[in-house]
Amino acid sequence: MRLTLQTDYALRSLVYLATSSEGSAPAAKIADAYGVSLNHLVKVLQKLRALGYVETVRGRNGGVRLSRDPALMRLGDVVRGCEDLTEFVECFRPETNTCPLAEACLLKARLGEALAAYLRVLDGYTIADVAANRAELSAILGTR
Amino acid sequence: MRLTLQTDYALRSLVYLATSSEGSAPAAKIADAYGVSLNHLVKVLQKLRALGYVETVRGRNGGVRLSRDPALMRLGDVVRGCEDLTEFVECFRPETNTCPLAEACLLKARLGEALAAYLRVLDGYTIADVAANRAELSAILGTR
Repeated sequence: MRLTLQTDYALRSLVYLATSSEGSAPAAKIADAYGVSLNHLVKVLQKLRALGYVETVRGRNGGVRLSRDPALMRLGDVVRGCEDLTEFVECFRPETNTCPLAEACLLKARLGEALAAYLRVLDGYTIADVAANRAELSAILGTR
Repeated sequence: MRLTLQTDYALRSLVYLATSSEGSAPAAKIADAYGVSLNHLVKVLQKLRALGYVETVRGRNGGVRLSRDPALMRLGDVVRGCEDLTEFVECFRPETNTCPLAEACLLKARLGEALAAYLRVLDGYTIADVAANRAELSAILGTR
């Protein structure tokens, strides 16, 4: 059980942009800061753009920036947007499920309840909350 | 984000054995019931044996059986035993972490809190709870 790398880097990219005093950053700088391939990071940013979290800035200081207040970006929503949570266990996706118990299964409901509790915690925090120590983070990331 | 197949089949195997009126079952029968390869299921059962959930029964009606009361098998503990939760995000395992933020990161703590909430829900239920509809499950699994 692990977050996909896409979600991990999506969260990190939003934190990066939330700590940037310039507001925008080229994808290459974010990729460098986290030691991830530019190609991978560009895909992450495409996803974040499709979800409405970032927007493209053209021109000399071009790149991406947050498209709304990070205090409105709940961590749970970012995870829901980036992950396909119907993949959590096979039976969460009826079209491809092969487990014969699905209809009668009590375990499925408990796993669903646990996953909901997980998301509920993350819904209690926003990107602004986890970028609250901005000076410290931006010193590490070089986003000052 | 998904449970590993090992954990999924570990939980299913414990449910299978909890519904079996004979108490024990050959690995091949469990594998057949869930449509998984015998090879894969044998590995799952080895893990469950190492964790103390099942034991081997030799002889004509040989196979595996639960090694203790399923009412004492908390779902959260099965997940903790089968999953390597330090893999949940890279920074949960300091030895291999590459994220430069780890020491200053507020996100890491929130993900840890969410994961704890997930496990807390599962700790509230046991294998006996999710096999409570035993007649219905055993009719599907053919374990009557």
